[in-house]
Amino acid sequence: MNKIYNPKPETWSNILERPTKTVDDIEATVKEIFKEVQKKGDEAVAKYTSLFDGVAFKNIEVSSAEITEAISKVSNELKAAIQLAKSNIEKFHAAQKTERVQIETIEGVICWQEKRPIQKVGLYIPGGTAPLFSTVLMLAVPATIAGCKEIVLCSPPDKNGNINPAILYAANLCGVTKILKVGGIQAIAGLTFGTETIPKVYKIFGPGNQFVTVAKQLATQFGVAIDMPAGPSELLIVADDTAVASFVASDLLSQAEHGVDSQVILVSTSKNFIDAVETEIQEQITVLPRKEIAEKAIANSKLIFVENDAIALDLINEYGPEHFIVCTACDDFYIDKIENAGSVFIGNYTPESAGDYASGTNHTLPTNGYAKNYSGVNLDSFLKAMTFQKISEKGILNIGKAIEIMAEAEGLRAHKNAVTLRLKAIENEK
Amino acid sequence: MNKIYNPKPETWSNILERPTKTVDDIEATVKEIFKEVQKKGDEAVAKYTSLFDGVAFKNIEVSSAEITEAISKVSNELKAAIQLAKSNIEKFHAAQKTERVQIETIEGVICWQEKRPIQKVGLYIPGGTAPLFSTVLMLAVPATIAGCKEIVLCSPPDKNGNINPAILYAANLCGVTKILKVGGIQAIAGLTFGTETIPKVYKIFGPGNQFVTVAKQLATQFGVAIDMPAGPSELLIVADDTAVASFVASDLLSQAEHGVDSQVILVSTSKNFIDAVETEIQEQITVLPRKEIAEKAIANSKLIFVENDAIALDLINEYGPEHFIVCTACDDFYIDKIENAGSVFIGNYTPESAGDYASGTNHTLPTNGYAKNYSGVNLDSFLKAMTFQKISEKGILNIGKAIEIMAEAEGLRAHKNAVTLRLKAIENEK
Repeated sequence: MNKIYNPKPETWSNILERPTKTVDDIEATVKEIFKEVQKKGDEAVAKYTSLFDGVAFKNIEVSSAEITEAISKVSNELKAAIQLAKSNIEKFHAAQKTERVQIETIEGVICWQEKRPIQKVGLYIPGGTAPLFSTVLMLAVPATIAGCKEIVLCSPPDKNGNINPAILYAANLCGVTKILKVGGIQAIAGLTFGTETIPKVYKIFGPGNQFVTVAKQLATQFGVAIDMPAGPSELLIVADDTAVASFVASDLLSQAEHGVDSQVILVSTSKNFIDAVETEIQEQITVLPRKEIAEKAIANSKLIFVENDAIALDLINEYGPEHFIVCTACDDFYIDKIENAGSVFIGNYTPESAGDYASGTNHTLPTNGYAKNYSGVNLDSFLKAMTFQKISEKGILNIGKAIEIMAEAEGLRAHKNAVTLRLKAIENEK
Repeated sequence: MNKIYNPKPETWSNILERPTKTVDDIEATVKEIFKEVQKKGDEAVAKYTSLFDGVAFKNIEVSSAEITEAISKVSNELKAAIQLAKSNIEKFHAAQKTERVQIETIEGVICWQEKRPIQKVGLYIPGGTAPLFSTVLMLAVPATIAGCKEIVLCSPPDKNGNINPAILYAANLCGVTKILKVGGIQAIAGLTFGTETIPKVYKIFGPGNQFVTVAKQLATQFGVAIDMPAGPSELLIVADDTAVASFVASDLLSQAEHGVDSQVILVSTSKNFIDAVETEIQEQITVLPRKEIAEKAIANSKLIFVENDAIALDLINEYGPEHFIVCTACDDFYIDKIENAGSVFIGNYTPESAGDYASGTNHTLPTNGYAKNYSGVNLDSFLKAMTFQKISEKGILNIGKAIEIMAEAEGLRAHKNAVTLRLKAIENEK
């Protein structure tokens, strides 16, 4: 752990620097697979599934029999936990619905904004050691509330050609319309171009390794939208002597176990507290099954002492953490003033895990400083705002002259003429 | 004009195909200029301003004396028109403000969502023959309402080193905090990396030629967000015998004058109406100053007859027009059922020009089929949604067990431990 006392503002950007990855070598591979999937469809997908996942399929679509079997394999205890989490996520995302915004900007000119669902969305759920069924909840629940018609989930099969039962259970529970056993670059390419089996979608959501991340970026060059750019997960905690050192240490460790490149930062106005957290981390880390990963992330972690909360706030806003835990004597100060953060966790009994699973907020959040310019996934991520306007004769009389003058000044005579013709017609009616 | 009767659905995607551009040759140039600006800052910016715009500056920042002079050059008539437009745009975008969304998802677990401004935004306004001061309104007004702290406007200088007075007038009126005489790739690169003079921003908005478009795309690889991918402007009108052929023709022409690659489409259930519009276009086009541009766009335009409104709707949803004018006996059918469109204009007295300038809606809209997955620019484009959660002891008792079970099932023991420690502490308190 790196303890840093009173760093000068001009050093913050160095101290807070995130690991950068070069993706140039990956990019060529991704482009090649995209080209092949675009051209050969399912055949290319099958080739790469065989190559990367080591399995061959006749049919990559998960059948209802497979879903039924998966449901029977998930314990009742886990089902109940998933259902509770789903209920909270549903409540919070349903609350984000916005009504039509309508106003008469000037007499006779009615403008409104309405949000309508993105018709076809793709959800990517990584495979590997940790089956991320929680991410299924975080993406499928708002997609269903938004009213997306096609919700296609792709997840790589294991060596036996199966997807983890908990993922299938959650997908079925949350309204996913099609589940496909396909992962990696070939899954993102399939969702981008469409194949005989994989539907082309308009927006792709979900986490993934660096291949998936680069593939999602490339997808945007072919007209597909993505949820947000990805990066390693990160947590910044601001805490003082009013916090509990063991709790704070457990939160830092829960971030550290995600991956060796996880970012773990503690900012405090108390040197004693920093020391106490350090001791707690050293104790707690010994019993973790993912200890090796956590140790590497912790080795890169930063424990930063600053003189006061105003300095802490400035530093935190410069960093823009994905997860931000506040546990101080002046929580309200941070809540009011935080400008850049993905999700904020307040007080001693609000661990990051709560937001990761069950509080109701979304865990798909902007990393890598993107909290400065991107929202985390929310209901609006599955909708697009459309505007409407209806102008009466009275309305065009009210704004027609201004449009004519502005169009003329921009040198767009046909724009002007579209108004002039209408004003003349109204004149002639009299 | 291409008249097409009753096209079969399987031919729609061909008929509605948009022009595609290869950007590969541009990309190398853009990358090179980015590299140079990143390395050399203002020096590189000056070099390319001299090369592309033919002017050399000591200082690219517009001074308050220049603004004062510009204000005196804009006619009172144009000022009044701009002020009227601003007032309507302000009203409509201010109405889009959303309150904090807060709920208690389960007893003791309070979650809320709040939107906070993106602190630093860059607005790009093209130069050239048409001074797009209307775009200044469309971007700076919502940026100001959102509360963005730094609103930096870049626009290329003319041969004499000046920006059009109407652009300066509008920028000053709408709360832009800094105006810079810099355009093209070097402007986007400057906003991406920051230079001695150009501030680094978090999100870049605004239209531009294909160099600017590719530069904005590249900017996203360096952590900057952009408003949306760009493409040639487009208009689809659905109209029947209840519409006025001369009005519809004038709207199609106002789209056609934008550029030779503008997309102009009329869909109708009346062959007579299509013929009447065709005749009107031929008449009206002769007097346009931008006739040559309009003629080329019109030559590629499509006048499509379909049997009924249901077919028309399907075709329109497949296309996803940027601008969509509805002028039929059953407008409500289209308004209710349209799934993919940027902005919708309803009835005989609602020309596209109204939304381009003064109705109040935004004219920065998704083209190229992006209406399927992107919103047009709106107030939220300048904000990001952040989530907050505060959990009490009672709250963690309510959801703690579920988190423990889910974290364990995902193999994330430290996530579980963060909850277990807290549950134990509560237990010990008793």
